Amino acid sequence: MSVTSAQGFRAAGVAAGLKSTGKPDVAVVVNDGPSDVVSAVFTSNRVEAAPVTWSRQSAADGRARAVVLNSGGANACTGPEGFLDTHRTAEHLAAALDISPGDTLVCSTGLIGTRLPMDALLAGVDDAVAHLSSDGGDDAAHAIMTTDTVPKVVTVTITSDGDAAPDLGTWTIGGMAKGAGMLAPGLATMLCVLTTDAEIDAALADAALRAATACTFDRVDSDGCMSTNDTVVLLASGASGSRPSAEEFTDALTEACASLARQLVGDAEGASHDIAVRVVGATTEDAAVAVARAVTRSNLFKAAVFGNDPNWGRVLSAVGTVPESVAPFDAARLDVTINGVQVCRAGGVGDARELVDLASDRDVTVVVDLHAGDAEATVWTNDLTHDYVHENSAYSS
Amino acid sequence: MSVTSAQGFRAAGVAAGLKSTGKPDVAVVVNDGPSDVVSAVFTSNRVEAAPVTWSRQSAADGRARAVVLNSGGANACTGPEGFLDTHRTAEHLAAALDISPGDTLVCSTGLIGTRLPMDALLAGVDDAVAHLSSDGGDDAAHAIMTTDTVPKVVTVTITSDGDAAPDLGTWTIGGMAKGAGMLAPGLATMLCVLTTDAEIDAALADAALRAATACTFDRVDSDGCMSTNDTVVLLASGASGSRPSAEEFTDALTEACASLARQLVGDAEGASHDIAVRVVGATTEDAAVAVARAVTRSNLFKAAVFGNDPNWGRVLSAVGTVPESVAPFDAARLDVTINGVQVCRAGGVGDARELVDLASDRDVTVVVDLHAGDAEATVWTNDLTHDYVHENSAYSS
Repeated sequence: MSVTSAQGFRAAGVAAGLKSTGKPDVAVVVNDGPSDVVSAVFTSNRVEAAPVTWSRQSAADGRARAVVLNSGGANACTGPEGFLDTHRTAEHLAAALDISPGDTLVCSTGLIGTRLPMDALLAGVDDAVAHLSSDGGDDAAHAIMTTDTVPKVVTVTITSDGDAAPDLGTWTIGGMAKGAGMLAPGLATMLCVLTTDAEIDAALADAALRAATACTFDRVDSDGCMSTNDTVVLLASGASGSRPSAEEFTDALTEACASLARQLVGDAEGASHDIAVRVVGATTEDAAVAVARAVTRSNLFKAAVFGNDPNWGRVLSAVGTVPESVAPFDAARLDVTINGVQVCRAGGVGDARELVDLASDRDVTVVVDLHAGDAEATVWTNDLTHDYVHENSAYSS
Repeated sequence: MSVTSAQGFRAAGVAAGLKSTGKPDVAVVVNDGPSDVVSAVFTSNRVEAAPVTWSRQSAADGRARAVVLNSGGANACTGPEGFLDTHRTAEHLAAALDISPGDTLVCSTGLIGTRLPMDALLAGVDDAVAHLSSDGGDDAAHAIMTTDTVPKVVTVTITSDGDAAPDLGTWTIGGMAKGAGMLAPGLATMLCVLTTDAEIDAALADAALRAATACTFDRVDSDGCMSTNDTVVLLASGASGSRPSAEEFTDALTEACASLARQLVGDAEGASHDIAVRVVGATTEDAAVAVARAVTRSNLFKAAVFGNDPNWGRVLSAVGTVPESVAPFDAARLDVTINGVQVCRAGGVGDARELVDLASDRDVTVVVDLHAGDAEATVWTNDLTHDYVHENSAYSS
């Protein structure tokens, strides 16, 4: 049910003709309240698409009623005209819903550097509004897909046990997502809309969303490329009347985001292996993330995994590129374990790499022990494959 | 003639059996003086190979007489035993040449994480010493090749015109190099030995080498991966008796390094396009380099070039990942020109991308104008191809 799993939300997904395939390409999600809390996080790319600029402003006051999303065009690098297109889309949606344009967010994904076909898009918005329904979440999830082979949706329901206090009870978080790295020739744009009927204020929504994305979506690094359009939106209706604590809500939101993030990695079309790089023994979590990210961004290591080669030398050479100031460690103490086999011990040769059988396992887990502290972190990626090169060279996107 | 183009040098390259193919794999370069000046720059990877550790110490006093180089094994991540192997190699070479072990440098390239076959290597060192000759430069250049299809050599000869002062006259820089990025499944190790008969002191050698490598080898970024073994050595014999100025020598050395760097890019086996990313209008040269490097490290952009797609959206999205603190610019003013066609103007759509014909040209020149200042820089790379993935997944290296 995705974004309509929680009470107080309607959604729809329709085909407006933006995609040459004729598949659904416009989605609308509406928060019917009573609350209209919103929080959103966006790409940190300085070249940001027009809808990102719009939505960043629109979400700044912590209030929003609706989100319109389109696939089939990113509306990025389209100049002032592109921003006007986004503005028109927001105004059109607002008029159809009888709300303020400032209470709407816009998300786009697709080819960079071309204008959107506005007549088709606005007609699609009308069509989506006409089809809004409290079970339209799955249609919406389909309409935001680009090269995704399956929609990504999640529902997390929390029910308090025993004598529930009046501010607890049952509450739900639903969500949908598309994209990520190898999935997307279209610059890996990741779009995600999360909805909840928990009664939370804008401050909690914002804190929880930042905490949840920082350890989930921010740690999926398929090909090191940052999109111009990445957007994660959280809408809260308060319709359940339940008021979870900040910790409860943050935990549940993190669970929802983690599920969607793993679904993104799991659907990477070009990939033959899902790789988790876990760095332990770091001085800080930031240091662990930096080291893990260096490994997940090594083309040589990722190509080796595609070849089912547990090439720990390429892991170590990537680890060694992280500056001492970022992650203190002694290179002569590094240990590397791949799928349970300690192939590198104290910076040198460990157990036989032949003991690692990557050919028969899609999942690859690399553990790097820095022996420098107690902090750890995991970053997820995929292998570098012929299909990745094919997808990203054969399409203009 | 490579490293023996300058007076005062002998070299040799022999097959010692380190490579399973039986091709040459051990090279020795000897400086017969009268001067024994050396300077060297090394990988900044914190996981450095044993020969890097040795040579860094050995070159620290600015004096060296000989360099021994082997392909067929990197001697990296081999622990204390690996360092002893390098030490033994240096002592063996020193004994054969009747010099101090502290006047020898060692370079290795090949598979990480396995010990070198020392009996074969030491026998190879003896064989190379027996074959040292003043025209052995080409043999040496062959012996350091890994997946290079051709040896990379250069000779720069400077003759002063007219009434030469006694400290001018004719002097020469010779050099050989191997490797770089896509060329090398073996972690892209780049080895380079430069020789000169100019009469220069250690301080000038060091300053000139750092200046020359900073704007040549340091700006070739084939796949963003940093080797554990990269080494560039400059030996000066003073045999010509010519004393060029610091500026003259630095210019000539830069010319030699630039030639070798371009040869490395040009022989990238996996590549179908050589890409030069030139960033102009930057506030500083460092800012220009940072922006250029962001583009040369974008897998999405490099895969697009493989598909002959002048995908300026992927250029812009890479440019946008550089923090404002590193490179100030206004995203709405960015211009991008690809092979002479201005495909992006003021951050938006420019001339038709169809005007760019990448299919019929190996060379791709991308110019990004930041409109923020007067500084510029160029970084060279290759496209991301099926052959790159094949080479780096099909071999354990």
